[in-house]
Amino acid sequence: MSKQELFNNIIRKQSFLCVGLDTDIQKIPPHLLQEDDPVFAFNEAIIDATQAYCVAYKLNLAFYETLGVRGQIALEKTAAYIRRKYPDRFIIADAKRGDIGNTSEMYARAFFESTGFDAVTVAPYMGEDSVKPFLVYPEKWVILLALTSNKGSQDFQLTTDAQGERLFEKVLKKSQEWASDEQMMYVVGATQAKMLEEIRKIVPNHFLLVPGVGAQGGSLEEVARYGLNSQCGLLVNSSRQIIYADSTERFAEAARREAQKLQEEMSKYLQWIPNVK
Amino acid sequence: MSKQELFNNIIRKQSFLCVGLDTDIQKIPPHLLQEDDPVFAFNEAIIDATQAYCVAYKLNLAFYETLGVRGQIALEKTAAYIRRKYPDRFIIADAKRGDIGNTSEMYARAFFESTGFDAVTVAPYMGEDSVKPFLVYPEKWVILLALTSNKGSQDFQLTTDAQGERLFEKVLKKSQEWASDEQMMYVVGATQAKMLEEIRKIVPNHFLLVPGVGAQGGSLEEVARYGLNSQCGLLVNSSRQIIYADSTERFAEAARREAQKLQEEMSKYLQWIPNVK
Repeated sequence: MSKQELFNNIIRKQSFLCVGLDTDIQKIPPHLLQEDDPVFAFNEAIIDATQAYCVAYKLNLAFYETLGVRGQIALEKTAAYIRRKYPDRFIIADAKRGDIGNTSEMYARAFFESTGFDAVTVAPYMGEDSVKPFLVYPEKWVILLALTSNKGSQDFQLTTDAQGERLFEKVLKKSQEWASDEQMMYVVGATQAKMLEEIRKIVPNHFLLVPGVGAQGGSLEEVARYGLNSQCGLLVNSSRQIIYADSTERFAEAARREAQKLQEEMSKYLQWIPNVK
Repeated sequence: MSKQELFNNIIRKQSFLCVGLDTDIQKIPPHLLQEDDPVFAFNEAIIDATQAYCVAYKLNLAFYETLGVRGQIALEKTAAYIRRKYPDRFIIADAKRGDIGNTSEMYARAFFESTGFDAVTVAPYMGEDSVKPFLVYPEKWVILLALTSNKGSQDFQLTTDAQGERLFEKVLKKSQEWASDEQMMYVVGATQAKMLEEIRKIVPNHFLLVPGVGAQGGSLEEVARYGLNSQCGLLVNSSRQIIYADSTERFAEAARREAQKLQEEMSKYLQWIPNVK
């Protein structure tokens, strides 16, 4: 998907919501455990309920890998389901991969060719040749970790170098040599909303994937205030707050309500973008 | 597996070789493609041929993930095969994972509970709480990326902070607060062999996993000279040089010869350790 198409979807849906399918078999409503594929059954219901209010889905690979073969099957079925039924949704593999060239090539093939994701999250620690193999696919995206939402983000990401530049800033600057804002996004945690102002000085035009709203405590309004740019430039992910809003047979309805609430809030913030009706 | 058990195996086998099962279905001998599970058939033959000369196997997850469900099946069968037939081999999931706490917990469950690996490689970018969930399993190991073998290692790992400390050094120091040398190892590329002398000053007692000997150009002798400690402290990985030594029906025999060659060289270097017969 191109950047312009993504922006068009955001305006049309009046939403920059990404629903995180962090589907934990130990947390889904018990009645689903009788299904052949409980994880897929849960995802299908959540997707149908939330699709009107979001532009993207993010599948957290860990939750599928922990189930082995049946997790892999649920993952592929879920991606294929979204692709077939809601083809304009942007699908993110939240995988945080990154390895030497020939290995990153294999990961890129897994996510972009075999499973048909639009984007994959990548860790920057191994540098350029670990990221580049993901960039050879036109209209497929790398979402590079910059400043994450967790406490451990302080351990290394905020390290200041001899020139006073912090590691996450170095990542933002250096990686712009590898790809343009048509193929690269960055992960910036919502818990770091105030840093978005500084981040926007380095990457004014890039899309940012912002996790951490809701369960992790980030504020949507702050994210919008400091993060919006002229093409929105934000995908805000919410997972637990939506998908586990209710643990009874009415879970999908509850998820719909939570997604709609976020979408309505987002539609207000989208008015802040000049020259967009 | 405890550190002492690993060291005992190294002395008994006179080897600190780790065979990397980076099994690429496009590179395995063509006659295997008729098998039900060509990747597992290849791995099984390579394992039987090399097991006498190595103490560890490393499965590069990307090569399995790229095959989707059948890759996951081949991965699980391979780990189970080693565990059953050669129970004292140390099995590494080369996954380079690392995510917020609840997600790293899921990965830890995938690798340590579902699949029974002894160790998993983890990227340090997200800091302490992304690593800790892997450390709650007794006698299971985190192998943290420190200084990798690829060119991109220069992009961020060598960044010097205001105190003159490079990022990989900070990773080595900080992470020692998270776990002891009984549960933590570090990835240091063989292409960085001369840096091992400096690294040993920071982590004198830890095991290091050293990829990059062979195809990537690292020298085994240099790795041994600068990296050996009183409990060996090295697992040297070789993959392509061994597993693709020959592409005919005699591939396993060729792999055996390559593994044996490395083991014989390693047995010489092991004599450098004082007080070990």
